Amino acid sequence: MISRPPSCIVLGAGGFLGTNLCRWLVASGARVRAFGRQFLFPRELEGADVFQGDFSDPLALAAAIEGHEVVFHLVHATTPQSANRDMIGDVQRSVVSSLALLDISRTLGVKRIVFVSSGGVIYGPAKRIPTPESAPTDPISAYGVSKLAIEKYLALYEHLHGLDYRVLRVANPFGPFQIPRKHQGIIAALISRALDDESIQIWGDGTVVRDYIFVTDVIDALAAAASDQSGTRIFNIGTGQGRSLREVIAAIERQLGQTLRIEWKPARPVDVPTSVIAVERAREVLGWVPKTSFEEGLRETIGWWRSRT
Amino acid sequence: MISRPPSCIVLGAGGFLGTNLCRWLVASGARVRAFGRQFLFPRELEGADVFQGDFSDPLALAAAIEGHEVVFHLVHATTPQSANRDMIGDVQRSVVSSLALLDISRTLGVKRIVFVSSGGVIYGPAKRIPTPESAPTDPISAYGVSKLAIEKYLALYEHLHGLDYRVLRVANPFGPFQIPRKHQGIIAALISRALDDESIQIWGDGTVVRDYIFVTDVIDALAAAASDQSGTRIFNIGTGQGRSLREVIAAIERQLGQTLRIEWKPARPVDVPTSVIAVERAREVLGWVPKTSFEEGLRETIGWWRSRT
Repeated sequence: MISRPPSCIVLGAGGFLGTNLCRWLVASGARVRAFGRQFLFPRELEGADVFQGDFSDPLALAAAIEGHEVVFHLVHATTPQSANRDMIGDVQRSVVSSLALLDISRTLGVKRIVFVSSGGVIYGPAKRIPTPESAPTDPISAYGVSKLAIEKYLALYEHLHGLDYRVLRVANPFGPFQIPRKHQGIIAALISRALDDESIQIWGDGTVVRDYIFVTDVIDALAAAASDQSGTRIFNIGTGQGRSLREVIAAIERQLGQTLRIEWKPARPVDVPTSVIAVERAREVLGWVPKTSFEEGLRETIGWWRSRT
Repeated sequence: MISRPPSCIVLGAGGFLGTNLCRWLVASGARVRAFGRQFLFPRELEGADVFQGDFSDPLALAAAIEGHEVVFHLVHATTPQSANRDMIGDVQRSVVSSLALLDISRTLGVKRIVFVSSGGVIYGPAKRIPTPESAPTDPISAYGVSKLAIEKYLALYEHLHGLDYRVLRVANPFGPFQIPRKHQGIIAALISRALDDESIQIWGDGTVVRDYIFVTDVIDALAAAASDQSGTRIFNIGTGQGRSLREVIAAIERQLGQTLRIEWKPARPVDVPTSVIAVERAREVLGWVPKTSFEEGLRETIGWWRSRT
């Protein structure tokens, strides 16, 4: 089911998912180019062809893509917070740059684009939990609107020009190589602060429920999407199980054997209370299932953070 | 139900719907500013405060909007054909300019935005005919993706900033003041060519089915949307009835008492075979129904074209 993609380029290779994906691809023997603006873990990309460039620079993008058959599009230039503060900037960096990517890919004869969309924000406040792919898409963040627009343009490019694609609406991934950014990567933030014995600010009251998925399971899904021969285009990638932030905190406290120091702050308007996605489609069509339990994923993540100090 | 909007500005006032809307607003006693890049019928806008400016110029837009409570957003800078040829240009002119409009409207305290979206392209190839507002939105044209993105940003601005709005997904409007553009305004094109005794090129085989709605019914819906106090935001505005192009041609031939000279051309990939929208929601929530029969609308349109020669 999961076969090795022929020759691939990872856009956004310097980040969390990108680093993990490149390492997996190299280990599986694939020829892989790692494209990114900055690389958080350059030494971890050994065996990949590292190409430094900006996603919003069409000339760099075209030079990097030429000769590659599968494009993994993992770039998100903004965060849910920053996108809402500058929606036009978000459209320019995310949507317009992705349209340039589509045009370049078509011109260069790319065989498939695998796009990482967001299972966490694309549905907005969903009526059905866990939320299936067919649910209405009413994001309450500009970040989600951009992801949705890119999905629609992918479908349009296939319709008009035959450019093949798959979309993975990934829930909340966590694991090694995730560095907490402002308002993102809560598990990484909790673990790293705890190990440094520092306090952490958290928005909301801890009742927010999310679908946390361990990164190796996401990488499996990306590989499966790259070789999928079905007629399906959009897949939720999560666990189908929700965890409140308080449960996450308790689980980390159990594994670390210490109490986390938390400063609670008022909730943010871009947060939906509950986001859990249904993953039956990926199981049925891709033969993909998440294999790592939450506790096991936590253990690996904690182990990775410990190995860094 | 249909009350006079307090003080309003029509963006895209120089075009087909804009000219009709401004005339109706002036006749109803409203204070109305007509904003547009060019005005097809400047003399028809008597009584309106004509303000020439480009929708993509935020300074002009802000100067024009200041002091107005209701904004009618009727601008579409591109057509389904031109948008597909230059998708990035379409995003810039439609989506980015609309985001600037939202920001300006919020800053200036605009009370409501009424946005004309497209009932004809936003659903794509729909499974349910007539298509309700709740149907999936999978456009097969960049024009449709842009309209969808603007709808999503309107919802987002209300969620984040309380900016009130209504969206009308208008089917295929026709009537006086519609000037045929390339690939748009088929009824206007058929009538004007016939009266000039010229032939006309038509893409497809005439089996394409559309939901044609007479312009005064669209204007009634715009007025109703401006004063609506419901919690509903998106309304289909059409007749709920489909007509093939061949039926339209036959109806025009009957009224004109002459045979149209048609050159048939291959179909375009942006055309869905059938587009008919369900309008129960507008009837129930806005108390709006289309009042003009297709034949009556044709008669008025033909009369208008005859009066021009």
